[in-house]
Amino acid sequence: MSENSSPLVGVIMGSQSDWETMKEAATILKEFGVEHECRVVSAHRTPDWMNEYAKDAEQRGLEVIIAGAGGAAHLPGMVAAQTVLPVLGVPVKSRALQGLDSLLSIVQMPGGVPVGTLAIGESGAKNAALLAIRILGNSRPELRTKMHEFCKKQTDIVLENSEL
Amino acid sequence: MSENSSPLVGVIMGSQSDWETMKEAATILKEFGVEHECRVVSAHRTPDWMNEYAKDAEQRGLEVIIAGAGGAAHLPGMVAAQTVLPVLGVPVKSRALQGLDSLLSIVQMPGGVPVGTLAIGESGAKNAALLAIRILGNSRPELRTKMHEFCKKQTDIVLENSEL
Amino acid sequence: MSENSSPLVGVIMGSQSDWETMKEAATILKEFGVEHECRVVSAHRTPDWMNEYAKDAEQRGLEVIIAGAGGAAHLPGMVAAQTVLPVLGVPVKSRALQGLDSLLSIVQMPGGVPVGTLAIGESGAKNAALLAIRILGNSRPELRTKMHEFCKKQTDIVLENSEL
Amino acid sequence: MSENSSPLVGVIMGSQSDWETMKEAATILKEFGVEHECRVVSAHRTPDWMNEYAKDAEQRGLEVIIAGAGGAAHLPGMVAAQTVLPVLGVPVKSRALQGLDSLLSIVQMPGGVPVGTLAIGESGAKNAALLAIRILGNSRPELRTKMHEFCKKQTDIVLENSEL
Amino acid sequence: MSENSSPLVGVIMGSQSDWETMKEAATILKEFGVEHECRVVSAHRTPDWMNEYAKDAEQRGLEVIIAGAGGAAHLPGMVAAQTVLPVLGVPVKSRALQGLDSLLSIVQMPGGVPVGTLAIGESGAKNAALLAIRILGNSRPELRTKMHEFCKKQTDIVLENSEL
Amino acid sequence: MSENSSPLVGVIMGSQSDWETMKEAATILKEFGVEHECRVVSAHRTPDWMNEYAKDAEQRGLEVIIAGAGGAAHLPGMVAAQTVLPVLGVPVKSRALQGLDSLLSIVQMPGGVPVGTLAIGESGAKNAALLAIRILGNSRPELRTKMHEFCKKQTDIVLENSEL
Amino acid sequence: MSENSSPLVGVIMGSQSDWETMKEAATILKEFGVEHECRVVSAHRTPDWMNEYAKDAEQRGLEVIIAGAGGAAHLPGMVAAQTVLPVLGVPVKSRALQGLDSLLSIVQMPGGVPVGTLAIGESGAKNAALLAIRILGNSRPELRTKMHEFCKKQTDIVLENSEL
Amino acid sequence: MSENSSPLVGVIMGSQSDWETMKEAATILKEFGVEHECRVVSAHRTPDWMNEYAKDAEQRGLEVIIAGAGGAAHLPGMVAAQTVLPVLGVPVKSRALQGLDSLLSIVQMPGGVPVGTLAIGESGAKNAALLAIRILGNSRPELRTKMHEFCKKQTDIVLENSEL
Repeated sequence: MSENSSPLVGVIMGSQSDWETMKEAATILKEFGVEHECRVVSAHRTPDWMNEYAKDAEQRGLEVIIAGAGGAAHLPGMVAAQTVLPVLGVPVKSRALQGLDSLLSIVQMPGGVPVGTLAIGESGAKNAALLAIRILGNSRPELRTKMHEFCKKQTDIVLENSEL
Repeated sequence: MSENSSPLVGVIMGSQSDWETMKEAATILKEFGVEHECRVVSAHRTPDWMNEYAKDAEQRGLEVIIAGAGGAAHLPGMVAAQTVLPVLGVPVKSRALQGLDSLLSIVQMPGGVPVGTLAIGESGAKNAALLAIRILGNSRPELRTKMHEFCKKQTDIVLENSEL
Repeated sequence: MSENSSPLVGVIMGSQSDWETMKEAATILKEFGVEHECRVVSAHRTPDWMNEYAKDAEQRGLEVIIAGAGGAAHLPGMVAAQTVLPVLGVPVKSRALQGLDSLLSIVQMPGGVPVGTLAIGESGAKNAALLAIRILGNSRPELRTKMHEFCKKQTDIVLENSEL
Repeated sequence: MSENSSPLVGVIMGSQSDWETMKEAATILKEFGVEHECRVVSAHRTPDWMNEYAKDAEQRGLEVIIAGAGGAAHLPGMVAAQTVLPVLGVPVKSRALQGLDSLLSIVQMPGGVPVGTLAIGESGAKNAALLAIRILGNSRPELRTKMHEFCKKQTDIVLENSEL
Repeated sequence: MSENSSPLVGVIMGSQSDWETMKEAATILKEFGVEHECRVVSAHRTPDWMNEYAKDAEQRGLEVIIAGAGGAAHLPGMVAAQTVLPVLGVPVKSRALQGLDSLLSIVQMPGGVPVGTLAIGESGAKNAALLAIRILGNSRPELRTKMHEFCKKQTDIVLENSEL
Repeated sequence: MSENSSPLVGVIMGSQSDWETMKEAATILKEFGVEHECRVVSAHRTPDWMNEYAKDAEQRGLEVIIAGAGGAAHLPGMVAAQTVLPVLGVPVKSRALQGLDSLLSIVQMPGGVPVGTLAIGESGAKNAALLAIRILGNSRPELRTKMHEFCKKQTDIVLENSEL
Repeated sequence: MSENSSPLVGVIMGSQSDWETMKEAATILKEFGVEHECRVVSAHRTPDWMNEYAKDAEQRGLEVIIAGAGGAAHLPGMVAAQTVLPVLGVPVKSRALQGLDSLLSIVQMPGGVPVGTLAIGESGAKNAALLAIRILGNSRPELRTKMHEFCKKQTDIVLENSEL
Repeated sequence: MSENSSPLVGVIMGSQSDWETMKEAATILKEFGVEHECRVVSAHRTPDWMNEYAKDAEQRGLEVIIAGAGGAAHLPGMVAAQTVLPVLGVPVKSRALQGLDSLLSIVQMPGGVPVGTLAIGESGAKNAALLAIRILGNSRPELRTKMHEFCKKQTDIVLENSEL
């Protein structure tokens, strides 16, 4: 398993039920062999721990934080407000408004505190991990190489099955 | 002036530019003679101070917090997460999405951490103050009396100008 | 059971079918031992009774009214128009538009008549009760204590299950 | 002037500021010579008078009520709940959400209490009057004749100016 | 059965699949003993017949046309454009956008050609029939009496089951 | 001028006020030297003429119809229902809902009757003309050549001004 | 089968899962005997092949390209940017936002590069094929004849089953 | 000036008119002394150049690409599809739908090809630059230090002006 004591990516989410979505991020990080950790950190129910998590992230050696949340999804923005690391937000599909609320709560951040937001739901979780790896790849040639392979592979799969 | 050293209501907002909207709340509180304070407290730019403000509010004697914010409006929800006082949220009209983002970010809180949300913009700010006074009125008969007068007055104004 | 002859909170809803959502409010009120009553009061089908309910609430000793409704959800606003008590609105998820109509009908009240609006659906119902208890807590230290315990407990549950 | 002591159509609106929109209805009613009255009747600020207006309408001889309102536009629905006359609703354009809130608050009535809803804004106000006249025309052949002329005229105007 | 050779109300719909929704209108009309007819008349697939239906309606003795349609719901507006009778529109819930498209296509008519629009789906169909009966009631005292009874009955049902 | 007696493209619109938008289509058609005609044809105010226009279009030699309309924009769909020519729809920006209503009314056509829909407003009008020319180009090599030149030119303009 | 070596219409889609929707287009093209090809061509996963497909389409003899895609649906627009053929876009229903994202991504093209957009989902796929056939019909009288028959047939089906 | 021959960040946009928004990104990059370049690169009008730009970016030494676009905003996603660098997308406010279309077109990318999306408009442009600097900061301690100073400064500004 790639989750260990020196994680580069922190995957956090507002509630246990977000794991169903966010595990897509973990799957990709494992596939690329990127050390990471997965935690439930609730902006609303564990604000102190969230603050601590955000503030400690840099010196703990994290380079990217992926935060998933639904509804009034404050987790990504509040973490971004308390770290200088890049923070990526994943809007989890909500019950009533299907993630439109989650999306707007995450993406519409005021100037000064950025959250790089991905698509609603599982595609977004997967892409958050891929974007984290693209970021890490800037100083890790082996990840860059793997990403080229990943892209080539997904191209090939489409090409091989293109005729209907 | 009603703003003084023992405020019952804290009126906070995410940015200086929200004052244009939120001053409607202050106007009502003054009109009813309710002691209050008005502060810019940014969830994203001053998270530490926000946390402190929220945590100290109860023992400072505040009984209601009114929080206005626009866009990814995290202030009301994050304050509500760190106090047991009633928190009222005012969605400030945003530039692109006209406050729909502000509204959803404030109102769609997860179970466990409530924010009583008012209308987008100035009507919402005015109503947040009126709701605060209704709340305070539960244990302050003189505010209840004033609220009855306020309601009667706004009824009378409509009745006197009803014919077109 | 906490429902008895001297209720502090009135939980009303526009139709029998809203009970599925609104019972979340009742559950919380019972958990905190807050005396309350639950009634179907329809703005559109029983306007006279709604008016009577709203007008009598104050002298019956209610301190908060929680009103849930779906679609063109007029109940919370019409009750707020006829009492000086704080009124909290819960948008019930609707069939076609999933509660967006309910939300806007409840929250977009004109200046002068406030409704503190919660999230669409069950989270909103639960939070309406919690907000009512925060309001009651202003003059009832034992409820304030219980609310601190409630918050601590929901924090602990997240912390204990944070690792994935 | 066509406004007199035996009005057939009541044109009511939630606030003075709605008159800018609703006067389009009055203009059409005058043009067709239909007796009518125009009043500000606020669901939220004058609920008692609204109830009285709705309940008395039938025996005062009104045959159609046109109600315009914006935001959480409860007037049309609450009037419809207290009369058996046909009620037509006009969503007035609101500041933040441009009348989408008004529209949903008026049109999404529950089964049992109908409001015939027209377009947002001035076109809706004009059309409410035209629909009222179509309704009155069922038992007033002279109005039916005038409506045929009105339609023919608006057809002719387009045809005469069709080439660009 | 109330459907016979001298119908007062025409209930039309854009496709066979709309019957599931529109039969609610027929049920109410039967319950009130109002003579009516139900037809599939498609604006897009049978425009000639739609034109004929609309143009003949008045002299066939119809007094109200109820038209239900989904998606780009042109039927109500196109019928309204070719008759001087009151036309009521019912937005049928659509697959992708859940009737928001149907609603806007029906209600946002230009000034000059009114369609009285009801709620999306079955409630709207039921209410279209009730609004038709309110319209017919202007010159038929027995329908007015029945409508009073209908309203009283739905009030009583709520009152009898109000306690939860 | 390119408007003459043997038009290939009919540019129609629901009202005089749509010309401000739709003239963009005419400008492009002129630029390409495509014979066309521009007419106000209202679905709601001149249904007979619209029907006639649609039915005669094929034998008059038109090969494409461009129809612009706003609000409950029925013109494109109703024309498409009465011709076998390709019909292109342009949603004109509306006052309250900014063309979202126009867009949904035009694009959400039921299976069987297609309208090729372009963007809201002036870009859509321009593109409707360009799409018409692409269609005509299938059997007119000189238009195809001109379209290649047009595309090359708009590419060159960007390239020449790319540095900021 | 009508899919062969000289296709007139290219039916492409962004992913294998879009076939469920897009096969409606193929069914219609077969029914009319129009030669066509169906391919998965992903804007995001096979951009090179998409570019090649778009650029070669004209000289391969295609006259219309139908492109279906969901979410951030870039396929239709990117193909339109690289061919002078008419391109028709089909918004495939997406998981979270039900195709509203797909629709806006396809239809809101900037002036200069047109995509004729159809309805969300299966109706849109069917209509894209019908619109392609209307386009081809401009220079193929036998397709025009078949389209007249198709329209007559769908009219007849409604007429025969109109009574409910 | 910070724009020079070895840029780390490419700031591209779909049209000249987007510069008004995107210059906010350039301002921040200059303020931090980050070498960058600004170019108009249109997905729809210069697809070849866009492809070339995306494919060459990695070996030209760029580490982040910021792409702004409005409406059917395909630029960020198409660039992300042709590079393994992190791509950040800025939805530019559009005329009719105010950037909701731009936002959905950029953020709703399918799994496999990530675009980190920022807020609509100028705040988003500013934040894209700040997120780029956070990314670059992972391997450039001096940028990390500057970012800490930037954050501290924006905190201080709020604190100094907090009282109203």
